[in-house]
Amino acid sequence: MKNLTRRMFVSLAAAPALAQPAERVERWGAWELALRGPAEGNPFVDVSFGAVFAGGGRQIHVGGFYDGGGVYRVRFSPDTQGEWTYRTQSNRAELNGKTGRFVCGAPSEGNHGPVSVRNMYHFGYADGTPHFPFGTTCYAWVHQGDALEEETLRTLAAAPFNKMRMCIFPKSYAFNENEPVYYPFARDAAGKSDFALLNPEFFAHLERRIIGLQGLGIEADLILFHPYDRWGYQDMGAAADDRYLRHVIARLAAYRNVWWSMANEYNFLKKKTLADWERLAGILKAEDPYGRLASVHNGGELENMYDHSKGWITHVSLQSSQTEQGAALRKRFGKPVIYDECKYEGNIPKRWGDITARELVRRFWMGTTQGCYAGHGETYMDPKDVLWWSKGGMLHGESPKRIGFLRRILEEMAGEGFAAFDSYYPCAGVAGKYYLYYFDVHQPVGFALDLPAGRFSAELIDPWEMTVSGLGRDFAGKAEVKLPGRPHLALRVRRV
Amino acid sequence: MKNLTRRMFVSLAAAPALAQPAERVERWGAWELALRGPAEGNPFVDVSFGAVFAGGGRQIHVGGFYDGGGVYRVRFSPDTQGEWTYRTQSNRAELNGKTGRFVCGAPSEGNHGPVSVRNMYHFGYADGTPHFPFGTTCYAWVHQGDALEEETLRTLAAAPFNKMRMCIFPKSYAFNENEPVYYPFARDAAGKSDFALLNPEFFAHLERRIIGLQGLGIEADLILFHPYDRWGYQDMGAAADDRYLRHVIARLAAYRNVWWSMANEYNFLKKKTLADWERLAGILKAEDPYGRLASVHNGGELENMYDHSKGWITHVSLQSSQTEQGAALRKRFGKPVIYDECKYEGNIPKRWGDITARELVRRFWMGTTQGCYAGHGETYMDPKDVLWWSKGGMLHGESPKRIGFLRRILEEMAGEGFAAFDSYYPCAGVAGKYYLYYFDVHQPVGFALDLPAGRFSAELIDPWEMTVSGLGRDFAGKAEVKLPGRPHLALRVRRV
Repeated sequence: MKNLTRRMFVSLAAAPALAQPAERVERWGAWELALRGPAEGNPFVDVSFGAVFAGGGRQIHVGGFYDGGGVYRVRFSPDTQGEWTYRTQSNRAELNGKTGRFVCGAPSEGNHGPVSVRNMYHFGYADGTPHFPFGTTCYAWVHQGDALEEETLRTLAAAPFNKMRMCIFPKSYAFNENEPVYYPFARDAAGKSDFALLNPEFFAHLERRIIGLQGLGIEADLILFHPYDRWGYQDMGAAADDRYLRHVIARLAAYRNVWWSMANEYNFLKKKTLADWERLAGILKAEDPYGRLASVHNGGELENMYDHSKGWITHVSLQSSQTEQGAALRKRFGKPVIYDECKYEGNIPKRWGDITARELVRRFWMGTTQGCYAGHGETYMDPKDVLWWSKGGMLHGESPKRIGFLRRILEEMAGEGFAAFDSYYPCAGVAGKYYLYYFDVHQPVGFALDLPAGRFSAELIDPWEMTVSGLGRDFAGKAEVKLPGRPHLALRVRRV
Repeated sequence: MKNLTRRMFVSLAAAPALAQPAERVERWGAWELALRGPAEGNPFVDVSFGAVFAGGGRQIHVGGFYDGGGVYRVRFSPDTQGEWTYRTQSNRAELNGKTGRFVCGAPSEGNHGPVSVRNMYHFGYADGTPHFPFGTTCYAWVHQGDALEEETLRTLAAAPFNKMRMCIFPKSYAFNENEPVYYPFARDAAGKSDFALLNPEFFAHLERRIIGLQGLGIEADLILFHPYDRWGYQDMGAAADDRYLRHVIARLAAYRNVWWSMANEYNFLKKKTLADWERLAGILKAEDPYGRLASVHNGGELENMYDHSKGWITHVSLQSSQTEQGAALRKRFGKPVIYDECKYEGNIPKRWGDITARELVRRFWMGTTQGCYAGHGETYMDPKDVLWWSKGGMLHGESPKRIGFLRRILEEMAGEGFAAFDSYYPCAGVAGKYYLYYFDVHQPVGFALDLPAGRFSAELIDPWEMTVSGLGRDFAGKAEVKLPGRPHLALRVRRV
């Protein structure tokens, strides 16, 4: 346990000179300017700092942040190649009116840019590459210490997931009794937090982990608030919430793999009102220059969903087991739907953490063929309470490789997303080209196709065995496909 | 095919004398008076006939019916032992003012009386015996000819079902292309029905089958209207509908095992308005002297449910796969809930008729532990199109014996119904005495009991393997039950 005090911050005032800002940055990279400024008082409260970036005919206001030790930073992720200039703004002379320029070049290999909503119900990277989110969840993985955190990254490198759902604040909950390595705010000897005094070490660590995910091609779905708390972070008051949020945006928004999740189980944060959430959303909208993806996740089931017609919510992020409802939800909100928490493969004595791998795979297939996305989590009992869903570490379950199989199948579809068809069995695909049917608990001996013009191949897919078997002939028009009368199969029909 | 004509009815006018009415009838039996009356014209339209029965300090008006051949019948099922008198009423002198008396004695063995709602959410026979409906469905079994119909009765005699969901009208649908043996109305040579001229032979045959079910202890859940029709029965007009319904009530209500299902998939009868249904319900309420159980079944899913707050509906009869919703539906309507159609075990290429036995058994367990009831049906492909769900015959599936296993477990609970507890996993039982938990797709390694005072035994139940395994010790208060970490199990906890 580390007890940070106000003294820590002020004692670092006489630090060495800061590096010059880079002359070049790649497109969608994070360019940074660091300046030395006041360290006395409480810079988090007393000092305003930011910059205006100009390039490609636009001017963009970007908030900066105090990083401790008298150092102020402002970061910017340009979306346009070419020259950019900047001019800082501050209520302190030494931070105000600093100008300069840098050049934004082509993105490096593997940098596809940030993800945004594409084709109403789907996602894509800024360079046009489609993004099919196949997320997992390790809520508190960044609070477990380097050894376990690095093991988590190694596991992720070999896993099929491209999104990580994770909390910024430490977590206090069943199987989560350990104190975090870093605390987000200064604490006194009795452990009482000073919510006005952010801990740069905490946020710098978080930042390293987000960069680690970016290196693996994994989106960081950052949960800004959550109710699993014994330190008071869920109820800091509006001023502290706002200051914390502005800091997080200023520090992290420039990382192209950042998504914002306003809350996990927002409705379990009993002290926050809808007005609070909307005020925080307003800050997000005003301060995030990139309009990163933003969502808010409910506790319980669908009836507890936040009002997803709100404009700041880019996609539906759900807790719900009912992936069967996906097509209806898509239609209702006109936004992509991610069942981020359709419950977890595991065996802990919690109803949300004890479903079978088969059931989780079923929910993924059902969600996908409803034109939606699903998220993974794993909660097997562990003698050291290292459960993937919260702490990361290693994966033990049977679902990840099947989820990877589904991801590959989905990625073989056309890149511009896929429709959920109004079909007899759940079906997603690309009209006229590609149809993926899922039979779930149904075991029909046949299925009547009614195909558009042209010839189509048909393959039987076993989502559990991860096999694809051609049916040995092509189909056209109205045609009956013979099926084996076994459940839990899928059928892929593709234009030849 | 039989083509009945008006001539048939009038030609039978000079028939032999009718049997004297019985001097005794058992309690809840069907006493009958038959009288000879006019056979000319259309007696179904022209002649009114009924009787007032007096006994036990009450007077009860009962409608009679024309049975063809100049014979008029009125039936009555007394619920009170002792002397009853009657006086007929008619617009024809020869049928009016006939009086007599008979004695109602004790019920014979196996006669528990009619079923009615008990304890808000449950059912019981009039003699106090509880009734837990475990129904099956053979929509058109009475239209298949004696050989198959008698095979159906033999199958039922060995099956675990105590309710049969069945249509009065013949059925025209997939796998149901055969003409019925009997038609409910007279038809001309071209097959056109005269809806004003009922066919007593049809109804007498139906009646024999209802009596056959009664002999097996099976409730006959009679579907009064349905949309699977090529003969015009779904759209006969209000006058014919009303006349048909009055005839059915007069003829059949006296059988204690009769339940009324106003319609199957009422919302698919496109020509009928809500006003039509309510008018028909008014007739049911006015003409059925016994207030037999009455329901109305929806097509599609829950969103198509009839307004179940209507007073004439005694219980919720559903088409829905979502037996998980049971406890909420119970609470919403304050009535028993029967998932009469939670879809069928089978393999036909229909989404409602191709679920696995495991899934149907799962839906039964889920419904039961939500404090509700479920119904069976079976739809395996058959070279002669004899599918149990419609025509009866033999059962081929794997679910019936498991449903019987569940029925035995439920019947071991206390007789006065069971509560659905607000529990972490679905749980039904009798407070303080008996708890039945169902874990479905969950596989926790343990479960935390929080028991009332006293000691309890615990047994692990495998609904598919049909095994019950004691856990080897008693439990009290807050206690952790170790579970094997396998899905699809149940836990029974009983006061020692």
